[in-house]
Amino acid sequence: MTWINENYLKLQAGYLFPEIGRRRKAFQAAAPDAKIISMGIGDVTQPLAPAVTSAMKKAVEEMARAETFRGYDDGGIGYEFLRQAIRDNDYKARGVEIDLDEIIVSDGAKCDTGNMQEIFGLDNVVAVSDPVYPVYVDTNVMAGRTGGWVEIISTIDKLKSTIGLGRYEGIVYMSCTEENNFVPEPPAGKVDLIYLCFPNNPTGAVATKQQLAEWVDYARRNKAIILFDAAYEAFISEPDITHSIYEVDGAKDVAIEFRSFSKTAGFTGVRCAFTVIPKQLKAYTKDGRAVEVAPIWKRRHCTKFNGVSYVTQAGAAAIYTKDGKKQVKKTIDIYMSNAKLIRKTLGKIGYTVYGGVNAPYIWLKTPEGVGSWEFFDTLLNKAHVVTTPGAGFGSAGEGYVRLTAFGRPENVKEALERIRAIS
Amino acid sequence: MTWINENYLKLQAGYLFPEIGRRRKAFQAAAPDAKIISMGIGDVTQPLAPAVTSAMKKAVEEMARAETFRGYDDGGIGYEFLRQAIRDNDYKARGVEIDLDEIIVSDGAKCDTGNMQEIFGLDNVVAVSDPVYPVYVDTNVMAGRTGGWVEIISTIDKLKSTIGLGRYEGIVYMSCTEENNFVPEPPAGKVDLIYLCFPNNPTGAVATKQQLAEWVDYARRNKAIILFDAAYEAFISEPDITHSIYEVDGAKDVAIEFRSFSKTAGFTGVRCAFTVIPKQLKAYTKDGRAVEVAPIWKRRHCTKFNGVSYVTQAGAAAIYTKDGKKQVKKTIDIYMSNAKLIRKTLGKIGYTVYGGVNAPYIWLKTPEGVGSWEFFDTLLNKAHVVTTPGAGFGSAGEGYVRLTAFGRPENVKEALERIRAIS
Repeated sequence: MTWINENYLKLQAGYLFPEIGRRRKAFQAAAPDAKIISMGIGDVTQPLAPAVTSAMKKAVEEMARAETFRGYDDGGIGYEFLRQAIRDNDYKARGVEIDLDEIIVSDGAKCDTGNMQEIFGLDNVVAVSDPVYPVYVDTNVMAGRTGGWVEIISTIDKLKSTIGLGRYEGIVYMSCTEENNFVPEPPAGKVDLIYLCFPNNPTGAVATKQQLAEWVDYARRNKAIILFDAAYEAFISEPDITHSIYEVDGAKDVAIEFRSFSKTAGFTGVRCAFTVIPKQLKAYTKDGRAVEVAPIWKRRHCTKFNGVSYVTQAGAAAIYTKDGKKQVKKTIDIYMSNAKLIRKTLGKIGYTVYGGVNAPYIWLKTPEGVGSWEFFDTLLNKAHVVTTPGAGFGSAGEGYVRLTAFGRPENVKEALERIRAIS
Repeated sequence: MTWINENYLKLQAGYLFPEIGRRRKAFQAAAPDAKIISMGIGDVTQPLAPAVTSAMKKAVEEMARAETFRGYDDGGIGYEFLRQAIRDNDYKARGVEIDLDEIIVSDGAKCDTGNMQEIFGLDNVVAVSDPVYPVYVDTNVMAGRTGGWVEIISTIDKLKSTIGLGRYEGIVYMSCTEENNFVPEPPAGKVDLIYLCFPNNPTGAVATKQQLAEWVDYARRNKAIILFDAAYEAFISEPDITHSIYEVDGAKDVAIEFRSFSKTAGFTGVRCAFTVIPKQLKAYTKDGRAVEVAPIWKRRHCTKFNGVSYVTQAGAAAIYTKDGKKQVKKTIDIYMSNAKLIRKTLGKIGYTVYGGVNAPYIWLKTPEGVGSWEFFDTLLNKAHVVTTPGAGFGSAGEGYVRLTAFGRPENVKEALERIRAIS
């Protein structure tokens, strides 16, 4: 008899975005003429940069000729031409020395942040921010690293009727609130695997170098590992914010960094990302032996994955050319000008908003006494604008909704007009 | 303190192909002038079909314009246009009814066959053929579904000095030998998760419909699940061989089928595959409740994966057009004419060979008393031809090497000449 992995049965409801999709569809069915504008799911809208598409077309042509055809990406960790561009531009240029074989190319930061936990033991204590990108939590639940789901009674009664708030037993949740500027401090107790994401999804918050240094110090003292998701690094606009955790001294001993081309260069439908695992990063066996983490991840990567499309990798490398950089910067400027407008307009209307300065996300505080799914429904039903309920990112996200700046400028403007009209 | 997943430490040596690469490199360094021909790793050499590359170029152009740009593949299970083409051509055309939502598109059959075990409990008993595609075994070792590695003393003494033979405790290995025509019978005892691959990698064997029916019957009686890898389906040349396990009555209750475009259409460097999970397929909770498997796999897929590149999916769909079919067939004919030549020539030289009729792999019996790594070294050092040692696929593969038919015809001819010269 084949047994199911019962850990999957602990997972709550659907993944956040399918639930949003369901409500959106239901509303559209009831109001077929409504022109819905999405500020919900973090998907991009601007086309790929010309430098990227011409590199991709050239790569397709190479695949059409026997002499230049490419099969398996040898080793499956990414072509050297791409890893070189990453090393030189994302690290060397910022004074961080990363070796080529410390960079492992993949098809997405969601995949990497989701899969990474597999190479660590099941009895590690996992710490996450709350609110949090659901993938970190759900993949640990699936693996069996948590207990069951425990409901939390919301302080906002109405919420109970829309969607349950709760937390999984066994995970250490670090609340991100207005009080701590949405940046958690290291916990008093011991944790082993720490997921941090800066610039943050969903709050848009950034950590200062000093705050990251405290985390690195904590990890070094406790032999913990920081899983640092820097997928939104390209949206940093303020000069004193660190782009890589490796800018912090000692971080290479304790941190894995995840990067993505999804938002940076509009690769959500193209699929390319990478992960950095420094050689000196170690985890431990139960009898106290230190084991290098990078070879274990590579072993997983080359056994359960088979490399990224050559066409995609050729496109990703073009992001780092002179033209590519200019074009990608232009697109990011469009999104960040959306972000600025969202912040400003919502603030003027009277809402309290966070983020949107070094991140493409705006974290909007819902009106007093209004739950985040309720506010989501209001914006959907009255303004025909889709957002993401903060509660979907964790119980500390209750009382907020996330707006993304990835829309087309004309849509963003119209959405804000509509929100103003109903406020 | 971060604990490593110690199951990874049970894994033997490197993955098979890196070890082959190491020996090849060492030989090339010692003999820089030797022109090595690879008949080892199962990578293709013919370029992509023109129908595929023009569809991919068109897709890249769509990605370059805001009006036609595509971001995340909604839901992550593949665009409907591709799943429709799969359903109609791979199933309906063979009299098999598969629903659109039973097809889940992915970036590789290696990924799918490697990841699938995650959604099943750790105490399932896994059965594999021996020899076997290493991914099935290694991913179960990583997950903790096996005990340690136990060495087997080879009947061929020399082999001990090259690479260890052995098996993992807790896995049921089903030997595939000349006696059973390389098709194992269902075991007498109970197993839960059964990996079958036909046409087979590495032996090139196929199972008859009657043999598959016995497996389906076994699975139904024991509430087991068959993980059926049909990645080489396109190479079937004999009319009475089943292409899909669902051609067998009752298989939809007990079988998951994996397909790939890697070998079919030269997508090893493009990355596209799919998995079929029928709605009625169930696994069980410990308290005896039947759970549908498809939603659990989709939950995993959408949480740890983020869809296949749109450009890749557009290319895959083009395989099913009239031109695409013709062009892909032509490429397969090239490979299968290689296979025929390899079989014929090696047979004439006096070797015993299997496979190569409905599969792109030829399974060559090594000369009496010669181990497979030893024979691999002989072919490499004397004929400068790279093969894959059968022992790398499991202990029952000892005494064989695998040759692939994926080379360029002129290289295959030369490789065979060289083998003839040293035999």
